[in-house]
Amino acid sequence: MSKQITHTVRVEFGDCDPARIVWFPNFFRWIDAASRHFFIECGVPPWHETEATLGVIGTPLVDTHAKFIKTASYGDLLSIHASIAEWRGKSFVQRYRVMRDDELIMECDEVRIFAGRKDDGRLFAWEIPAQIRQLCE
Amino acid sequence: MSKQITHTVRVEFGDCDPARIVWFPNFFRWIDAASRHFFIECGVPPWHETEATLGVIGTPLVDTHAKFIKTASYGDLLSIHASIAEWRGKSFVQRYRVMRDDELIMECDEVRIFAGRKDDGRLFAWEIPAQIRQLCE
Amino acid sequence: MSKQITHTVRVEFGDCDPARIVWFPNFFRWIDAASRHFFIECGVPPWHETEATLGVIGTPLVDTHAKFIKTASYGDLLSIHASIAEWRGKSFVQRYRVMRDDELIMECDEVRIFAGRKDDGRLFAWEIPAQIRQLCE
Amino acid sequence: MSKQITHTVRVEFGDCDPARIVWFPNFFRWIDAASRHFFIECGVPPWHETEATLGVIGTPLVDTHAKFIKTASYGDLLSIHASIAEWRGKSFVQRYRVMRDDELIMECDEVRIFAGRKDDGRLFAWEIPAQIRQLCE
Repeated sequence: MSKQITHTVRVEFGDCDPARIVWFPNFFRWIDAASRHFFIECGVPPWHETEATLGVIGTPLVDTHAKFIKTASYGDLLSIHASIAEWRGKSFVQRYRVMRDDELIMECDEVRIFAGRKDDGRLFAWEIPAQIRQLCE
Repeated sequence: MSKQITHTVRVEFGDCDPARIVWFPNFFRWIDAASRHFFIECGVPPWHETEATLGVIGTPLVDTHAKFIKTASYGDLLSIHASIAEWRGKSFVQRYRVMRDDELIMECDEVRIFAGRKDDGRLFAWEIPAQIRQLCE
Repeated sequence: MSKQITHTVRVEFGDCDPARIVWFPNFFRWIDAASRHFFIECGVPPWHETEATLGVIGTPLVDTHAKFIKTASYGDLLSIHASIAEWRGKSFVQRYRVMRDDELIMECDEVRIFAGRKDDGRLFAWEIPAQIRQLCE
Repeated sequence: MSKQITHTVRVEFGDCDPARIVWFPNFFRWIDAASRHFFIECGVPPWHETEATLGVIGTPLVDTHAKFIKTASYGDLLSIHASIAEWRGKSFVQRYRVMRDDELIMECDEVRIFAGRKDDGRLFAWEIPAQIRQLCE
């Protein structure tokens, strides 16, 4: 179990496509923001600080699975509820439910890692840092 | 089985984030373009034409599952191989493999529908139109 | 003179580029949202309503001139102050000042029109609708 | 005078808004790519190399002025002609003409700088580097 935060998004005209509904890559834009706000609201310092202290440069995405239940359009106010559904050895599952009032619009489960960067520039996955996990639970 | 098309994308500076890698929602932007080019290259008319002839306004996404294998950055040339992996009653699975030369960068399976629009503006799923399926096989 | 509204934006990680600053096209994304919110907050109905009542489908951009004074990055909270600086016969100048607390980050003057759509699909500029102007002053 | 390059863009469905035309911030996305390709095609190394050799981390935008002449929509193939219209002491004017066949769709003049980064992270403008200017003329 983890804390849960709510990130609010207002859908804008330019977020919608010629079918007048949200163009789906924008949902991932908002979900990525919700992911970061989850850690911020749990008290985890911003990644440019954790880079110096823990070697963690961010939480890149490894796998994502999303279901689009209902469409949304501009003027809609969306609430993105974000939590961590599972901690694994070197990865974690971050879960999102995107609501418009009581209606479920979209849901998404992501696998992310806490990434470090090797000397050659490549990214690698850290064991889940205990300090970060504790802040999120 | 279906035809397979290749959609080419050059990664730009602005597609990358402060970690200097492609910001992942951009992959979905490119995949959505590859989806449409698949139908165009198979000979399916653009959606504003099929809206008049078949009542099909497009192929909205119902479900997507993506795996991010390697990172990409600006200057990279990506080849997106798109095909249809499965035809179901009222939906189909569109499959993508994003390659940089021989390296697999990302793969994605989507469930999409051929959508019509009701009088009240809502979308619904048509049975797979035989004419479209025939063009894609 | 016109009313002035303030549209607030929080800069996200994905809004920034490998130089770790806001990638500039995102400023135009936010300004376009501020433009629409200006009319909404002045009491102008959404464009899908004015399309039916006045034949106005929106306010497409004809000309924009922007100055980028200071950089912004993720975590910053930006206030976009929007107003209408000038009414012309068939166009108007919408003005924006993007602030981070007391610091001016960016400013922009746009020329926009109230657009209708001809039978062949082309857009044209209406005379400034008196009802809309009155709501904005 | 400078060299001129042509950067080609195919407009995608998701680049268009509910008015079925290109949502204007996307023009700036493409222009920013054309700006970088101009330097690449002139033989200027990528910015992560010039950062090491010249201290130039990129060409941030100081001022942009764009005119939107005709609309474009998905399926259109756009040619962006990019050149440098003027060299100034610590800045330069980069010019773009966006064409669809013979039709002028949009034109834009930008003021950009060759930026370095100070120890405190702030950006500053270099004198125009002679090696870069020579490659572009």
